[in-house]
Amino acid sequence: MSVHKSFAGANDEYVKDFNERKLGGLALPPGKKVVVVTCMDARLDPAASLGIREGDAHVIRNAGGRAPDALRSILISQHLLGTTEIAVFHHTDCGMLTFTTDQLQSILKDKHPEHAKEINEIDFLAFPQLDENVKEDVAFLKNHPLLVDNEHITGWVYEVETGKVRQVV
Amino acid sequence: MSVHKSFAGANDEYVKDFNERKLGGLALPPGKKVVVVTCMDARLDPAASLGIREGDAHVIRNAGGRAPDALRSILISQHLLGTTEIAVFHHTDCGMLTFTTDQLQSILKDKHPEHAKEINEIDFLAFPQLDENVKEDVAFLKNHPLLVDNEHITGWVYEVETGKVRQVV
Repeated sequence: MSVHKSFAGANDEYVKDFNERKLGGLALPPGKKVVVVTCMDARLDPAASLGIREGDAHVIRNAGGRAPDALRSILISQHLLGTTEIAVFHHTDCGMLTFTTDQLQSILKDKHPEHAKEINEIDFLAFPQLDENVKEDVAFLKNHPLLVDNEHITGWVYEVETGKVRQVV
Repeated sequence: MSVHKSFAGANDEYVKDFNERKLGGLALPPGKKVVVVTCMDARLDPAASLGIREGDAHVIRNAGGRAPDALRSILISQHLLGTTEIAVFHHTDCGMLTFTTDQLQSILKDKHPEHAKEINEIDFLAFPQLDENVKEDVAFLKNHPLLVDNEHITGWVYEVETGKVRQVV
């Protein structure tokens, strides 16, 4: 209940070589002009597992690493901050594979029947098949009319059992 | 244009001590029952700067680290995966402080006048004041009727100039 109290101590360690690593002068736009979209899952460390250093890339994370839910952020990234490449990562053993939107809506409506209308309006974006959904999310972006660059978009799976990534599309 | 090609090489390095670190057997639910909401900004490495290790915490990232945009993911995290604490981080020199939703909608409508209607429906969630918006996002979560726990929610600012974090609320 007070995990946040550990943040300050860990942060003291992080800042020790912050100036030495020249991190204070990094520019706002991502140096490698890339956006990584991936899941919020606790087992993932995108920076460590993909070699992303401070200043390199926008990293968007949400439940499932879903592209439709990342659209607002991607439009800001491309139109205001100059990114041109997107890599979408989903992962094995994802929680999103274990339920349907209908099921979660039912759980919430049982707890909060007075909010049934709002709950029914939330699309939880669960998906039943991993590789298939990576392809769907990449297709969603490739076909989106408001993106600056619809070509340089790749789709990947991260294996939580091994730490390995494989490109799907 | 091909940054993603570097991912495989960096990933080879990451997996070298994956078994030694016993990362393959981590459970799906976050061990520390906490969700961190923060910005997609390239200069941020939440794992390194807050001492979050694989398995510890859900990490949600979007443009600005906005709580309203993270709601779908937070509901999944709390109701299906047992988290009870939330820490919201925004940061200095954030791109979201440099424009308004109206301005970005205008930029997009100039480029794509045929999609004006859809563009007008996108709330880009820009904000003019940093600390104030951290407080607003924490209040949004504390007042939200569908959260499991409305008490253990903190708000923070990360300083990109120094790497330091400070608690706002």
